[in-house]
Amino acid sequence: MAKKSGITIIALILSFLLSAGLRADDGYRLWLRYDRVSDPALLKSYTGTVRGILTEGQSTTINAASRELHAGLSGLLGNDIPIVTAVTSHGTVIAGSTANSELVRSLIGGNTIKEVNGEGFVIRTAVYNKKKIILIAGNEDTGVLYGIFRFLQLLQQHQQIAELNIESSPQTAIRVLNHWDNLDRTVERGYAGFSLWNWHTLPGYLSQQYTDYARANASVGINGTVLTNVNANALALTPGYLVKVAALAGVFRPYGIRVYLTARFSAPIDIGGLKTADPLDPEVIRWWNDKADEIYGYIPDFGGFLVKANSEGQPGPQNYGRTHADGANMLADALAPHNGIVMWRAFVYDNNVPEDRAKQAYSEFTPLDGKFRENVLIQIKNGPVDFQPREPFHPLFGAMPHSQVMPEFQITQEYLGFSTHLVYLAPLFEECLKADTYARGPGTTVGKIISGEGEDKKLTGMAGVANTGTDRNWTGHPFGQANWFAFGRMAWNPKASSADIAREWIQMTISSDKETVSGISEMMMSSRESAVNYMTPLGLHHIMGEGHHYGPAPWVHTGRPDWTSVYYHRADTEGIGFDRTRGGSNAISQYFTPLDEIYNDPARCPENLLLWFHHLPWDHRLSSGRTVWEELCYRYYEGAATVSSYILYWNTLDGKIDGEVFDQVKSLLLIQEKEAAWWRDACLQYFRTFSGRPLPPDLKEPGHPLDFYMNLKFSNVPGI
Amino acid sequence: MAKKSGITIIALILSFLLSAGLRADDGYRLWLRYDRVSDPALLKSYTGTVRGILTEGQSTTINAASRELHAGLSGLLGNDIPIVTAVTSHGTVIAGSTANSELVRSLIGGNTIKEVNGEGFVIRTAVYNKKKIILIAGNEDTGVLYGIFRFLQLLQQHQQIAELNIESSPQTAIRVLNHWDNLDRTVERGYAGFSLWNWHTLPGYLSQQYTDYARANASVGINGTVLTNVNANALALTPGYLVKVAALAGVFRPYGIRVYLTARFSAPIDIGGLKTADPLDPEVIRWWNDKADEIYGYIPDFGGFLVKANSEGQPGPQNYGRTHADGANMLADALAPHNGIVMWRAFVYDNNVPEDRAKQAYSEFTPLDGKFRENVLIQIKNGPVDFQPREPFHPLFGAMPHSQVMPEFQITQEYLGFSTHLVYLAPLFEECLKADTYARGPGTTVGKIISGEGEDKKLTGMAGVANTGTDRNWTGHPFGQANWFAFGRMAWNPKASSADIAREWIQMTISSDKETVSGISEMMMSSRESAVNYMTPLGLHHIMGEGHHYGPAPWVHTGRPDWTSVYYHRADTEGIGFDRTRGGSNAISQYFTPLDEIYNDPARCPENLLLWFHHLPWDHRLSSGRTVWEELCYRYYEGAATVSSYILYWNTLDGKIDGEVFDQVKSLLLIQEKEAAWWRDACLQYFRTFSGRPLPPDLKEPGHPLDFYMNLKFSNVPGI
Repeated sequence: MAKKSGITIIALILSFLLSAGLRADDGYRLWLRYDRVSDPALLKSYTGTVRGILTEGQSTTINAASRELHAGLSGLLGNDIPIVTAVTSHGTVIAGSTANSELVRSLIGGNTIKEVNGEGFVIRTAVYNKKKIILIAGNEDTGVLYGIFRFLQLLQQHQQIAELNIESSPQTAIRVLNHWDNLDRTVERGYAGFSLWNWHTLPGYLSQQYTDYARANASVGINGTVLTNVNANALALTPGYLVKVAALAGVFRPYGIRVYLTARFSAPIDIGGLKTADPLDPEVIRWWNDKADEIYGYIPDFGGFLVKANSEGQPGPQNYGRTHADGANMLADALAPHNGIVMWRAFVYDNNVPEDRAKQAYSEFTPLDGKFRENVLIQIKNGPVDFQPREPFHPLFGAMPHSQVMPEFQITQEYLGFSTHLVYLAPLFEECLKADTYARGPGTTVGKIISGEGEDKKLTGMAGVANTGTDRNWTGHPFGQANWFAFGRMAWNPKASSADIAREWIQMTISSDKETVSGISEMMMSSRESAVNYMTPLGLHHIMGEGHHYGPAPWVHTGRPDWTSVYYHRADTEGIGFDRTRGGSNAISQYFTPLDEIYNDPARCPENLLLWFHHLPWDHRLSSGRTVWEELCYRYYEGAATVSSYILYWNTLDGKIDGEVFDQVKSLLLIQEKEAAWWRDACLQYFRTFSGRPLPPDLKEPGHPLDFYMNLKFSNVPGI
Repeated sequence: MAKKSGITIIALILSFLLSAGLRADDGYRLWLRYDRVSDPALLKSYTGTVRGILTEGQSTTINAASRELHAGLSGLLGNDIPIVTAVTSHGTVIAGSTANSELVRSLIGGNTIKEVNGEGFVIRTAVYNKKKIILIAGNEDTGVLYGIFRFLQLLQQHQQIAELNIESSPQTAIRVLNHWDNLDRTVERGYAGFSLWNWHTLPGYLSQQYTDYARANASVGINGTVLTNVNANALALTPGYLVKVAALAGVFRPYGIRVYLTARFSAPIDIGGLKTADPLDPEVIRWWNDKADEIYGYIPDFGGFLVKANSEGQPGPQNYGRTHADGANMLADALAPHNGIVMWRAFVYDNNVPEDRAKQAYSEFTPLDGKFRENVLIQIKNGPVDFQPREPFHPLFGAMPHSQVMPEFQITQEYLGFSTHLVYLAPLFEECLKADTYARGPGTTVGKIISGEGEDKKLTGMAGVANTGTDRNWTGHPFGQANWFAFGRMAWNPKASSADIAREWIQMTISSDKETVSGISEMMMSSRESAVNYMTPLGLHHIMGEGHHYGPAPWVHTGRPDWTSVYYHRADTEGIGFDRTRGGSNAISQYFTPLDEIYNDPARCPENLLLWFHHLPWDHRLSSGRTVWEELCYRYYEGAATVSSYILYWNTLDGKIDGEVFDQVKSLLLIQEKEAAWWRDACLQYFRTFSGRPLPPDLKEPGHPLDFYMNLKFSNVPGI
């Protein structure tokens, strides 16, 4: 039994399995399956088109890319694709970068590929030495790696590869996963087990899983990972941990992935022995400068810091009467000599409960526009509250023209059913990215702002709070993998279509049968709206269980007001919703015209955000002709019913897809169905105490009285 | 892609892999590999001998056994072994129980198999209808399941199967794993990730891993699992958890495994709303009776309770002036109508620090001998202190003739290097089980006592604190699997040989190459002694890091005295060791004659327990002619050097065994080598401050001064 690379073996194992019509899929391989192509005609065409591999260059990245290409093609084509050193036949795949290959430069006809940027790639059918070849080229080796993954995906997706002419460049520079992983391996808001980082056995033992994590990320263009929780522990910045971080960085480096850490703002006190963490204090400044030097001694390509400051109890510059810009810039200056960056979160909380929390980040940050260093990115949640099933886009997008901003999406489903609900999040991402801010007139979408389109931004980026953990399939729910996949794709291209991404993911992960792809895709594409409906329809938000955020709890009314539910839904006998119009909190004023006008007017405000911006009477009529109360009822019922329809559909797949995946998703859909009904019934039982109205007669009464739902207690809910 | 049972597919996958000479083994399959037999001559002989499967009976156990037999044989023989309904050819494997099969009774020639007990089995070559068949039979279906696993293991171990005549019966009745798993999925003293029990997704989602856990246990005869930590949370006894426990019990039941829970003694107060947990209080008695009824409503074959009471802060009967017997009997009475049992731990701690903690359990429990109910087992740690690398056997073994006792071994390596040290524990188990207590004269081994040999015990048993977790290979260290395997084997047969078990495990898990088996076996068999040497030679004990128990810390001297290191090693300028002779704590008096005499005499006391029983001058001469100080030094160096020799040996396996396993074990051995040197150097630097003597001149000086080791700080050590 010879020692082989993990990738090769995985590929070969799976090619066997598929060819034998057998699989028991524990999900570990994610979308990197490389099973032998099941369509015989297509397989024949592929084997005719791809006959050898020639990679150019000697970097660890090229080596990793080359291994992936060989394993992937050998698996997909069902036989060992030879690695060649010269092009002597048709069908050679030539991969390399203009930076490191004379051959590639000659094929490109220049010193650089002008059509793509540094990390971009081209995949082209070409002729070399009178032989038809496939060129996978980038300007840098990382681009080659990305190109190779994309090329393999074409085969995984059963696309034609006879005549290729693909160009692709990432539209954002910093494409990162934020892991809210604590050093004790618990994961805040993690629902897929525990942290992937086994700090105890690092740096001595480098699990194969670290490599596979890097492969998965690189395959969708993710180029950074923040290893630690934003609610940070300064210990991560001490030598004992840095040597472990460096070991991970070493595994990730060939895959184009940089590591970042969260910097606890009070670290100079916590681990430095200083009496202050005042960002303008010379000793503090020196401490961070020294710390940055020290970190780069361990990790020469360290990415930088992600910082949550003055928010939810985290220390920050305001503790010393300084601004967020003072804090961010101090860290940025320490990192700048090493080309590191600071991602500074705009998710802030005043100690004084604000009149409208949705307004707070905008109020605090817009005055600082233009005051941040060149190596600072302001990380802004997609919506102004907190990763709710639906929010309007965050008003800071477009409102910081002289700053660099990146959105923060949540891939882990803190508010969307944990890892037991099938909710495809790409439509949520897409809704935000395609939202028109009107910041520079119509068409100034969030996507354009964050990719710096038409602007001269040095730094752009997109962050996603990771949903990975120790569960054997990485994400708990098999469909959680799609959210990780889609995040990477959309960070690469904020204009990408969530529907396209869904189809690609299904083809690579579950089935290449057209009807099955279309059926599963339909389910995925409606799933987020379904969750909105059974949780928070019509613009409702933040009515989940307290603390653990599990299940519905619109009745929460004690404790800090902006952590309660009643603060947000404001239901009373008159009506329901948060009045953010001019007559209310005036949050609408944070949006550019005409959005402020549209949002201000209940007749023009999109119905799916109606109760976000308006407190409306129960009898207010909607476009459907129904009252707010009736519509609320119908939406809740529709949301839950949609989940039931997923089960009916899923049952038709029995025997058509892998049995283990089938069983797991079926079990989870049954949980989701139960919990959707729980949301529906608990919320309607609660809201009817205000509306004083019956359910529309065609709807079934909830299963239990309100106090049943209010008395439910949960212990040891994961992710806290 | 048709849906298939997990077992079938795993078997088929692996038969392919081995036949293709390829594996990348993540360890998930444990020793249940069923790879195609690699020796062509043997394979040919097997395929001639095994040609069909006929199972008798319809129970879920027979169904599970039948699936296993089919998957296993099909994998091992490399083709689908047909399931037949009649014996029409040679080579049919007939499996069934006398309880449920007329055919089996006729083949046995009676209504029961007299040679084996209820869970036992026979495997016999026989003739039926003039055809040569293989009979796998038990008196009950569970025996059939065990027989099938044993039969498959014969093939996995490349043994001859042409003429079989095997009889085997378990020598203990209750063979359980104790999981110290908390409800938040952390595992106390767990070093393989987190708890296997995903309470959040139970009961809705039943992971395939639960089934595979049951298969692994059944394959070595383990028939019970205590799901929760002995430092117990009463919430586990509430309906919200019981429904989840019942779901797990449903998965385990076909595999002959009962579930047990830990009962927090204060549960009547914690969750019952009572004001007391006094075991003689009628309300408390009623509460537990009702609770037992409730539990059995969920789980009809619930095994019973494991209880840690009045120990390390846990509540217990002594809080109310009652005895351990009062507490145990009250719970036993509640469970008795349902055939449940109580396992009551003898690991007790007085609030007043005792003169010698090693004496305490004996002192507290011997007066209670004969006072426990028939359905109570006293669970006694193998040694009198706490799972140290070496302890004498616990003096309670043999000292409770009118009670039922079971040993508690620790499979998780709390004191033996966590999951980064290769330490094969079966020699430790064997040392204890074969120790002669002299309780009923010479030859009264611990093994005889716990299996009730020559006695009329209704209940016997053996418990092991589990080393399983969410790590992909279950146990963190690949060799940790061997400890789980060996525990099961020795619980089945306390007279088993640890060397035999090692060879069997290696053959089934790593390699069937004779030389490799022998080399790895040699390494395993010496590994525990090696750990004793580099950690606690000559009878030293309890000198590890405080709280987390990571690494050496003989200097710990603050806090509760019997939790310090100095309490146990008692090093001073005169000498070292705990005087437990007649002139000291007189712990030796807890052993039967002649052991008390032997232990009392430094000249006769086994050298490997010398400092356990004696405080000896540094210059005291040992059999080697060396002084205590010199011997201590040489042992520490020898222990560490042995680990280095493992690395040299392991490197010779590169290319001969699976690459992923090779790499992981190599990385872990390098960690172990470093930590062994750390133990050696820290301990010797510390003890020389008392001995005032130099190291023997042929030994290298430690790498750092003492304060270096004393100042090492560790955060987030796993398992706390």
